[in-house]
Amino acid sequence: MADAEIVAVGTELLTPQKIDTNSLYLTDQLNALGVEVVRKTIVGDERALLTETIRAALARSTIVIVTGGLGPTEDDVTRDAVAAALDRELIFNQDVCDWLVERFKKFGRKMAENNKRQAYVLDGAEILQNDWGTAPGQWIVHNGAVVMLLPGPPRELKAMFPVRCLPKLQELLPPQVIRTLFYRVAGMGESDLDHLIAPVYTQYQNPVTTILAAASDIQIHFRARCPSAEEADVLLQELASKIDPLLGERLYSKSGEPLEQVVGNLLRQRKAHLSVAESATGGMIGERITSIPGSSDYFAGGFLTYTEEMKTKLLGVPEALLREHTAVSEQVAVAMAEGARRNTGSEYAVSVTGYAGPAGDQVGLMFIGLATPRGSEAVRYQFATDRQRIRTLATNTALDLLRRRMLAE
Amino acid sequence: MADAEIVAVGTELLTPQKIDTNSLYLTDQLNALGVEVVRKTIVGDERALLTETIRAALARSTIVIVTGGLGPTEDDVTRDAVAAALDRELIFNQDVCDWLVERFKKFGRKMAENNKRQAYVLDGAEILQNDWGTAPGQWIVHNGAVVMLLPGPPRELKAMFPVRCLPKLQELLPPQVIRTLFYRVAGMGESDLDHLIAPVYTQYQNPVTTILAAASDIQIHFRARCPSAEEADVLLQELASKIDPLLGERLYSKSGEPLEQVVGNLLRQRKAHLSVAESATGGMIGERITSIPGSSDYFAGGFLTYTEEMKTKLLGVPEALLREHTAVSEQVAVAMAEGARRNTGSEYAVSVTGYAGPAGDQVGLMFIGLATPRGSEAVRYQFATDRQRIRTLATNTALDLLRRRMLAE
Repeated sequence: MADAEIVAVGTELLTPQKIDTNSLYLTDQLNALGVEVVRKTIVGDERALLTETIRAALARSTIVIVTGGLGPTEDDVTRDAVAAALDRELIFNQDVCDWLVERFKKFGRKMAENNKRQAYVLDGAEILQNDWGTAPGQWIVHNGAVVMLLPGPPRELKAMFPVRCLPKLQELLPPQVIRTLFYRVAGMGESDLDHLIAPVYTQYQNPVTTILAAASDIQIHFRARCPSAEEADVLLQELASKIDPLLGERLYSKSGEPLEQVVGNLLRQRKAHLSVAESATGGMIGERITSIPGSSDYFAGGFLTYTEEMKTKLLGVPEALLREHTAVSEQVAVAMAEGARRNTGSEYAVSVTGYAGPAGDQVGLMFIGLATPRGSEAVRYQFATDRQRIRTLATNTALDLLRRRMLAE
Repeated sequence: MADAEIVAVGTELLTPQKIDTNSLYLTDQLNALGVEVVRKTIVGDERALLTETIRAALARSTIVIVTGGLGPTEDDVTRDAVAAALDRELIFNQDVCDWLVERFKKFGRKMAENNKRQAYVLDGAEILQNDWGTAPGQWIVHNGAVVMLLPGPPRELKAMFPVRCLPKLQELLPPQVIRTLFYRVAGMGESDLDHLIAPVYTQYQNPVTTILAAASDIQIHFRARCPSAEEADVLLQELASKIDPLLGERLYSKSGEPLEQVVGNLLRQRKAHLSVAESATGGMIGERITSIPGSSDYFAGGFLTYTEEMKTKLLGVPEALLREHTAVSEQVAVAMAEGARRNTGSEYAVSVTGYAGPAGDQVGLMFIGLATPRGSEAVRYQFATDRQRIRTLATNTALDLLRRRMLAE
């Protein structure tokens, strides 16, 4: 069994504000290959310290992943430090340089002189092309160990790893298959969920079950590790057949799609359209819905009505209703959703009105409205957390309510 | 100048789910004393690996903080590993044992035999009493360096550190202060920025300059370390007086506020209101603006017009304009902003229309429109990245355009 170490490079990762999170992603990927991570080190942009760190890691482990420090500036010391640690030269690579020039040209910009630093490659390294940024990665086999240099920005690292590194690691490591079910669950908290399903999943060493929690959005990973995909799938199906009935309609995805995509698929299946009327969430529902490519097939549009005046003006919420029930009420939530549905001509509309805080006694009180061809309703929720999380919870809850109502039709 | 290393012990910290966060708290505390954290290491519950790690840390740094691994089980190897690294004996301490027995009794429980492991103290160590758990800390002065052993649970660590460790560290260290400027810059890339300001900041060892980059949003930290706040401020002002003119109006904050807050402050100062008309960003601008508490003072509302029909219906964009120029055009961006301004009565309105992708030849083409009391305009941008980032870039660019126009009035 191969052991790996992860070295995260960047002085910003040694401040009180920043933490290395790439290693969580990498650990997940490595574990799936049967590789354990035995040490993580975070060092600043200092060449000598980094050189020493990489030497020590190579003396212990057969896989060393270095993230960050591949940028174009003086601060970016990873190439130099690894060259020193491995006692290899850095060689200017014209192809990489041409590719960089081309990339800048494509974006209508001229490459700065210091970007040439990114075209230096360790003697004997394979270049890991980075189509998501300007820092190419490098793959070096050194005395039977593998050293990988990967860019620090999580977006680039996560795009590169599966296509550039994973196939090469799989070639290197004994064959085994990992199959994963990636459940997503709405409408219950982490500890309630665990209480519900732990009696089942704790009976299994394989698949391994992991519960991850974000604001009102719970993910469950079931991971089976077997010599063949067929064996792994049998194990997963057995466990799923016991878990699924416990989760019921709270289970909204078995393959990891986000809620906004599941809702989008349901709308598309129905050839229906959605509009939104957002007060406290201020655009978050629309942003989530339209984050899915192709959402123009079913997203009609929406209204951000942050003030009472706009609720009346843009959505036709009667002033009397606002006066009688206040803007944060079941009645106004319904009127907002109906106004959005009427003004856009969409079949479905969701609305949110509430107090996101931070000040006030009613912080966290939210009404979510829903208008459909079959009628309207609003549901009251009380969320007890901070402003940003309240808004996220309200958004998730609105999307989930819409999903459940569509499924129940 | 003292440097510190933090060693976090625990196999659970090497899984894809768990991350060491104690070090963020400790870094904040140490920085305030003028101590830099130069390395963080995360190791599992393995005695030999931990011993080696602590030896290496002591060879480099004068303060070594080891967190975790002080519990009563076989897995808790910190005491043994540190004893080996420092070549000191572990001595059974009857007082600690009595205290543990007493603590268990207080909670109506009998102490398990293995809790006696927690009563072993390194020869020459001072005991750091833990009133919040069963694992006492230890403070060892060793060849001019300090080694601290602290419990892993964040609640215990954060309760202990200020009362048990801080006073002892303050005695040890020369009085010094850290002051930070936290710049935020819009409208230029990381390497262009570095090219621009590196000739200045590289002349200074103190303040230390760090550049952090996210989508079209660059942060620069300048950190000065001096015996007094006055001296640190003088250094920062000197550097700032050279950097600020280079950045010009691209510098939107000197104290870390996000762009949406800076824009909000400008609107509030002008007693003006903003509305938005979002196509490709689908609500992201509204969401950002309303993420700031108190944004109801200046955010009027908005329109999510994802389809041509909604651009006409909700914003009054003439059908002829859409036919002649297409929905992604300067003319339509202007008409959208003007429609939002007109329909909400706000003084300012921004609009976004463009192709977020992922498919199509014109992906990344965006027009940002602006309507103000002094007239309307639209600016064309071409962003070359993925869907989510294009939307984020368009949002940042729209907020920044609005900021610059308000400042230029």
